[in-house]
Amino acid sequence: MSHTSDDKKLLARVSRLKGQLEAIERALENKAPCGEILNLVASVRGAVNGLTVELIEDHVREHVSNPETDTDEARAQGATDLIQVIRTYLK
Amino acid sequence: MSHTSDDKKLLARVSRLKGQLEAIERALENKAPCGEILNLVASVRGAVNGLTVELIEDHVREHVSNPETDTDEARAQGATDLIQVIRTYLK
Amino acid sequence: MSHTSDDKKLLARVSRLKGQLEAIERALENKAPCGEILNLVASVRGAVNGLTVELIEDHVREHVSNPETDTDEARAQGATDLIQVIRTYLK
Amino acid sequence: MSHTSDDKKLLARVSRLKGQLEAIERALENKAPCGEILNLVASVRGAVNGLTVELIEDHVREHVSNPETDTDEARAQGATDLIQVIRTYLK
Repeated sequence: MSHTSDDKKLLARVSRLKGQLEAIERALENKAPCGEILNLVASVRGAVNGLTVELIEDHVREHVSNPETDTDEARAQGATDLIQVIRTYLK
Repeated sequence: MSHTSDDKKLLARVSRLKGQLEAIERALENKAPCGEILNLVASVRGAVNGLTVELIEDHVREHVSNPETDTDEARAQGATDLIQVIRTYLK
Repeated sequence: MSHTSDDKKLLARVSRLKGQLEAIERALENKAPCGEILNLVASVRGAVNGLTVELIEDHVREHVSNPETDTDEARAQGATDLIQVIRTYLK
Repeated sequence: MSHTSDDKKLLARVSRLKGQLEAIERALENKAPCGEILNLVASVRGAVNGLTVELIEDHVREHVSNPETDTDEARAQGATDLIQVIRTYLK
């Protein structure tokens, strides 16, 4: 199964996530207060959720139905609604 | 857009959820310890997640691709993988 | 262990949640589109998260440390930070 | 505010998380199927949740109440219940 056509975008997200983890490492090494570290971890959670949503959306478009190109209107609408639901529930 | 073909199953889930909320009401009225009430709320969260997954699965099958009936094999496999991912991420 | 001093507030939240579930029942019975029902379920998830955060906050204040009344300043600050973290992670 | 006494353990977790992200990078570069990548991301989510729970627990023990050393029995029990609730809701 060919994978997503836009890996550069995803690789950039993963690289940013690694940068966020390195910030947590520095904060731990510098004995930063818990609150500061927990905020850094909260933003990592948000970034992981964003990566998850993007991957699932890519999967829907490439392997199930791409609303922009699917000639079956009902299925295209179903895929559009599905992508909206995935954003609601996983962000 | 016609809705899911299996509403009785979903209505039964919602009815059970209402029963779980009534159990929380009784626990609050009877001054039950926080831990007990928080456990009841945790099970409501689990039940809401289960309802969410079932609704999204029904949406995929009815409005995008039903792996059991879709004649396009690649799309049917894409929908099967998608349903598996939704279960992983939303349970 | 005595429970939270503000049960009326929590009972009102639970009652509103039951109302939201009844709205989902009506939507299912009226064959509303998936998207509409999934939005109703998303708001139930939000309300359950809100109830969870409020219960945990009450537990911290009543059974661990109430920042407004604890004479130990360091512990009061720790409880304040903890409540902020719980709101960040569970909303 | 002094931070957690056990940073080595947390730093090891963060380091493992970076390794998991590097596995996702390789999978993207090697055009692995979506399902495989989404499973890798699901395990990163689990690891981030684990890191979050451990940080919050450390915060409770160091800055609010350590159940093993707090001489106030009621508060120690409240902290024990709180740690249990955090594990339930954030894992």
